[in-house]
Amino acid sequence: MKKFVNDPKQFVPEMLAGLAKANPGTLEYVPAYNLVKRVDAPRPDKVSIVQGSGSGHEPAHVMIVGKGMLDAACPGDVFAAPPVDYVTETTKLMASPKGVLLIINNYTGDKMAFEMASELAEADGIKVATLVVDDDVAVKDSSYTIGRRGVAGNFFVIKAVGAASENGAELDEVVRIGKKVNAVTRTMGVALTSCTPPAKGSPLFDLGEDEVEMGVGIHGEPGRRRQKITSADEIVTELLEPIVSDLPFTSGDRVALMVNGLGGTPISELYILFGAAFDQLAAQGIEVARSYVGEYCTSLDMAGASLTLVKLDAEIEELLAAPAEIPIRTF
Amino acid sequence: MKKFVNDPKQFVPEMLAGLAKANPGTLEYVPAYNLVKRVDAPRPDKVSIVQGSGSGHEPAHVMIVGKGMLDAACPGDVFAAPPVDYVTETTKLMASPKGVLLIINNYTGDKMAFEMASELAEADGIKVATLVVDDDVAVKDSSYTIGRRGVAGNFFVIKAVGAASENGAELDEVVRIGKKVNAVTRTMGVALTSCTPPAKGSPLFDLGEDEVEMGVGIHGEPGRRRQKITSADEIVTELLEPIVSDLPFTSGDRVALMVNGLGGTPISELYILFGAAFDQLAAQGIEVARSYVGEYCTSLDMAGASLTLVKLDAEIEELLAAPAEIPIRTF
Repeated sequence: MKKFVNDPKQFVPEMLAGLAKANPGTLEYVPAYNLVKRVDAPRPDKVSIVQGSGSGHEPAHVMIVGKGMLDAACPGDVFAAPPVDYVTETTKLMASPKGVLLIINNYTGDKMAFEMASELAEADGIKVATLVVDDDVAVKDSSYTIGRRGVAGNFFVIKAVGAASENGAELDEVVRIGKKVNAVTRTMGVALTSCTPPAKGSPLFDLGEDEVEMGVGIHGEPGRRRQKITSADEIVTELLEPIVSDLPFTSGDRVALMVNGLGGTPISELYILFGAAFDQLAAQGIEVARSYVGEYCTSLDMAGASLTLVKLDAEIEELLAAPAEIPIRTF
Repeated sequence: MKKFVNDPKQFVPEMLAGLAKANPGTLEYVPAYNLVKRVDAPRPDKVSIVQGSGSGHEPAHVMIVGKGMLDAACPGDVFAAPPVDYVTETTKLMASPKGVLLIINNYTGDKMAFEMASELAEADGIKVATLVVDDDVAVKDSSYTIGRRGVAGNFFVIKAVGAASENGAELDEVVRIGKKVNAVTRTMGVALTSCTPPAKGSPLFDLGEDEVEMGVGIHGEPGRRRQKITSADEIVTELLEPIVSDLPFTSGDRVALMVNGLGGTPISELYILFGAAFDQLAAQGIEVARSYVGEYCTSLDMAGASLTLVKLDAEIEELLAAPAEIPIRTF
């Protein structure tokens, strides 16, 4: 294993400490519960938006805590759900009179931790709701999931509920919006390589020199099939077909298109995929009205990418266009 | 080779076409000269800022064209200087009464192309200046360079001259600022893996399973030494020592610290490096006042990172804090 790491057991805490040091004044790291929060959260006039999940998917979710996005993130260890008591304490810390929304990617471990934490927090008098994201069309049921997996489309749900909560929406309304965005969001990914969890020290699965895993999960779960690598154009066709036919997206639709890198793929290649997807959608009469290219939800150092489509209407488009400030200062 | 690519010869044009499709209304791709420009450039009230270099370093430089940054980027093929006539045509297209500044990373091929283009443009009556960036402390003279190489510190020069030019500064003043920032910027990088140019189809150099290249160049040029991989903390110590002692940076200094990923390293690891560098600098009395963590100047899919320090004063800090809008829509 060649990684920038000290003690693999301290991988997540050291990452979070670094994140907080890079963002003084906006982000706070609470080591006791391994959580990252906005320094100004919770606010009495705003539903608190919280996401937890395994680590290893950065920038999801600890690096999208900020205005118009998450109020707090509650990460587990790499590819592991956060402990129930950490989620409970995070929920208590984020308690607002307007309520707390817990966003859960659809993995059995995450669901159990968040549902139990939700009950414990409610017993303490906290107003709380949960929202499950399950945008991955690749497979129904998987290694760690009953039903569809929650993957990169999660970003759009967070962006929309983050904007709505900044506008002062009540908890019921925020939940309605989150469910609505999840219902029109579809994703599928492909892996060119495996990934190496720091504590394991070796690749999570094997993939041949000329093979790709079509429909891979963000923890390296199997997809639909293994096949020989083909051209960028052909890969885009194979990813788009199950996405487009699933909702379905049809001629005349306006969509947001995300090309998400899985951690080891340079952004140059992501733009090649984006151009191909844009053209193939245009040929089907589907207009790309909003574009997202980069790393949103990764799988450690995996080379690969996922495509996400969101069917837009006026309400969703306005929420996606609302200002957001993630505190990672880039430019 | 496993990459998202169609024809390797079309790697750069397809990436640029994808970039323009993702940014309608703000970016324009001119295939005839393989250049990317702001749709509103040149402006008569602003020095035009232009950077050219080989491709493969994205987001540098085609993805940092935007308000407060570059007016145009003129990329060559992967790891190759742009042709003289392309640079000349880009300079002509960016001609403003206030002048054009051509920023060159210090590689012999780039310098030749830009200096010749500068002379040709001047002969056509265009007011033009050049500015060389050479921030890499790893080696003096290298595979493609006489003198020090220009690497990720280039970002800070562009950010400062971009801000100054938006404020209406004259060409001489913009050049003064660019030289000043370059003079207080120092970088060193380390590679954990090689990288694979699409047209070559195989790794550019070999690196043992447990080896790193300390002081690597952004085209895989040799650094100071090969050594066994050590902890993140120790790697940071080895990168910081030559940077800090070179300027030198001393106790009481305020600095900008950049941890730049080389393309294949996930951002989680970059924050571990950042935390270590922040602490090691603090122990020397050096205060990190501005933080930059992510990919700024990459080497295709190379796993690795570089650290950059910039010594701040009031003028530089104000320019770095000025608003900038790169048109890549992320949040």
